[in-house]
Amino acid sequence: MQRVCVVGAGVIGSLYAAHLAQVAEVSVLTRREEHARALGEQGLRVSGKSDFVAGIAATSNVERLPDFELAILATKATELGEAAARLEGRFPRATLMTVQNGLGAEEIVRRLGAWPIVSAVTFMSGTRHGDAHVEYVLDTETWLGPYEETPLETVQEIAGLLVRAGLKARTLADVRPAQWSKLIFNATVNGVAALTRLPHDDHFADRDEPWQLGHLIHGLVDEGKQIAGAAGVPLQDDPWEMNVLATRRGSAHYPSMLEDVEARRPTELELINGSLVREARRAGVKAPLHEALYALVHARQSAYLPVAVEA
Amino acid sequence: MQRVCVVGAGVIGSLYAAHLAQVAEVSVLTRREEHARALGEQGLRVSGKSDFVAGIAATSNVERLPDFELAILATKATELGEAAARLEGRFPRATLMTVQNGLGAEEIVRRLGAWPIVSAVTFMSGTRHGDAHVEYVLDTETWLGPYEETPLETVQEIAGLLVRAGLKARTLADVRPAQWSKLIFNATVNGVAALTRLPHDDHFADRDEPWQLGHLIHGLVDEGKQIAGAAGVPLQDDPWEMNVLATRRGSAHYPSMLEDVEARRPTELELINGSLVREARRAGVKAPLHEALYALVHARQSAYLPVAVEA
Repeated sequence: MQRVCVVGAGVIGSLYAAHLAQVAEVSVLTRREEHARALGEQGLRVSGKSDFVAGIAATSNVERLPDFELAILATKATELGEAAARLEGRFPRATLMTVQNGLGAEEIVRRLGAWPIVSAVTFMSGTRHGDAHVEYVLDTETWLGPYEETPLETVQEIAGLLVRAGLKARTLADVRPAQWSKLIFNATVNGVAALTRLPHDDHFADRDEPWQLGHLIHGLVDEGKQIAGAAGVPLQDDPWEMNVLATRRGSAHYPSMLEDVEARRPTELELINGSLVREARRAGVKAPLHEALYALVHARQSAYLPVAVEA
Repeated sequence: MQRVCVVGAGVIGSLYAAHLAQVAEVSVLTRREEHARALGEQGLRVSGKSDFVAGIAATSNVERLPDFELAILATKATELGEAAARLEGRFPRATLMTVQNGLGAEEIVRRLGAWPIVSAVTFMSGTRHGDAHVEYVLDTETWLGPYEETPLETVQEIAGLLVRAGLKARTLADVRPAQWSKLIFNATVNGVAALTRLPHDDHFADRDEPWQLGHLIHGLVDEGKQIAGAAGVPLQDDPWEMNVLATRRGSAHYPSMLEDVEARRPTELELINGSLVREARRAGVKAPLHEALYALVHARQSAYLPVAVEA
């Protein structure tokens, strides 16, 4: 795999593109032509955990994309369908990798083509400082696994490429335990942050007093575990421990769902919280807290979105 | 009862003061001297359902208050303790009437003096247009009942005075069924509005689709009814019906808790949602939805209040 296309140059897409450009030919497909032009003219600067400027071939026109063996679909979950549709009927020999939050990204891609799919979860994070500058904040792992019939060797090859590029990656035979751990963590932390306007800070782990938020977080995580159990998915990590660890990092993180509601953008609610409550209903597990959180964030969005987002 | 003091000239206090000034000598005790001066100079204008200007004797100095037979404590629940403390050791022959949202207002007053207390719930609402102008929006009833040993005749006398003043009032032997109906309604509607930033509109009654907010509202009301049942309080009105009726009024109402969080003020959370969850714990009733709502609004406040509000 010498040629990689990164679709979507937000924080995660930019981190993949810049690092991979050190070891492969990287093209970036952006939504805005202005964004592609900035990348082409200035290169893509990474600061923080890494510090370099990568030369990047970028375009907003799928017709002008060079061929590639791997596409990393790194858009937000809300934009995945539209992004994948741009690849429909093209690049038949490519493998496509999804890294979206929540569940269902692979199914969205599958509906648009027969490409082999690699299912990934990333714990990296960063901050966007402009079209051509991303700060690498958490240099944590990407976990990759096969989807459907994709050979494990393909997954290992991609993981090797990421590691050579200076990123952290781990191959898993089944990525769902990791995906679900992150799903439960994200549904809980993103949902509560979006409603309370709190960054992911100490409040989320505090359980000393009965009125503290940690009790609710713990209850939401417990419900999530019961849903995972009923769906037959063992968890890779305990989402409560993930929560406690994250709040102890020192610098409070602003979950994307909080940033989205503050900016009056559509959130990833459907693929995160929506997926989780639908899994609960399918498995016949009661999930009153996650149902409540989902309904509240749904209503929160309807306070600013012109048309109600329907599940 | 010819002399009435209204403590706190917010919307509700202003509506009582202006109307009662038509049939009694009314004094108003304000927090800010500037507010008292505006009332003294301009009189108190009521628009909307009533339309007149009332001459009002107002002061921010309790030493200058003329004597009275009745004081209506019309501050927000969060300011009641401070307001009642200003009357401590004074006006021993007066009856004090509380009209705060939630539970516990009477206890707060009792701790500061042995006055007879009348317990009231009001469904009036209005909009403040300045220190000396209030718009009367909903001309609904005030329900009054005795607290502890207060004679029912005293309550009836006050109700009669309110009716002569052009307001709607009803005497009840026990006001708790009305207080609890409003408590459950307010805990639910105010809490959900504060988190979602939605005014109290159709969303709160919609239950056609599984993701709609009406299901959560109904679930919160059901929990509230179970708590009331366990506390031995029959409900005067069904809070779900109150909710549906209110959303059909046409003009969406901005619940005070939503206005408070938008203005970064302390909310009435403790006397409303806090009271309800503490009643649930006392009665041994599980109330996961109200516990969640309470924790979320509590956390929402802690995102802007300099010091965490502790229960």
